[in-house]
Amino acid sequence: MKDDNCIFCKLANGDIPTRSIYEDETFRVFLDAAPATKGHALIVPKDHAANLYELPDETAGKALILAKKMAAHMTEKLGCDGFNVVQNNGEIAGQTVFHFHMHLIPRYKDDANMNRFVWNPTSPSDEELDAVQGLLK
Amino acid sequence: MKDDNCIFCKLANGDIPTRSIYEDETFRVFLDAAPATKGHALIVPKDHAANLYELPDETAGKALILAKKMAAHMTEKLGCDGFNVVQNNGEIAGQTVFHFHMHLIPRYKDDANMNRFVWNPTSPSDEELDAVQGLLK
Repeated sequence: MKDDNCIFCKLANGDIPTRSIYEDETFRVFLDAAPATKGHALIVPKDHAANLYELPDETAGKALILAKKMAAHMTEKLGCDGFNVVQNNGEIAGQTVFHFHMHLIPRYKDDANMNRFVWNPTSPSDEELDAVQGLLK
Repeated sequence: MKDDNCIFCKLANGDIPTRSIYEDETFRVFLDAAPATKGHALIVPKDHAANLYELPDETAGKALILAKKMAAHMTEKLGCDGFNVVQNNGEIAGQTVFHFHMHLIPRYKDDANMNRFVWNPTSPSDEELDAVQGLLK
């Protein structure tokens, strides 16, 4: 269901125009207006869900299949050298619009000035890792 | 099918031990040995696929549903404040092991020293954006 106060609901449903590159009954894919790289696009479901936690399983089940399809299509048309799929939940994680979306980010050999999706690894002890496993398994 | 030369095939199938936190017939989820944050884990399919391009649709259809399930579980157990799901394809995109995997990265209010999944946006002209849309739509 659409949320009338949500900008991405309006974009996904065509109430506000986008640079749309794909649409089906569940999703719209459109170009990010402030792209990280050439071709940076967003997969956005038409029904409102704030984040992955709220996304219905049925939609989650289709989203990565669509990401795969778009990755193949975009790689063919753009000639990119790699591809990031990024999905952020919560402000601390970099989410700025609170409607679930997946970033499709084509990568190019000459885009080294872009932030890579790498991180400074931490070095927890075996005991610390065991404790986390104990919490989660 | 397993690739006998692939380390993630061995980890996902239990031929080499991991700090496993979940397993089903399709995937294993285990803690990253050099975590970005406490609880950083990887969803890894048991059958070999180098990346998203090669992942069978059937597996892609299950992967984000599992990410959702793990996000809920990990958020409850770890008390994190946000969650990144990151899937890299190709060396330029930060992929270092060439077996498809999704990073599940719990985020905490005090992890600001971690690289955020943000980027320096570019400012293409309307004409440039139209041209990309023309290529892709």
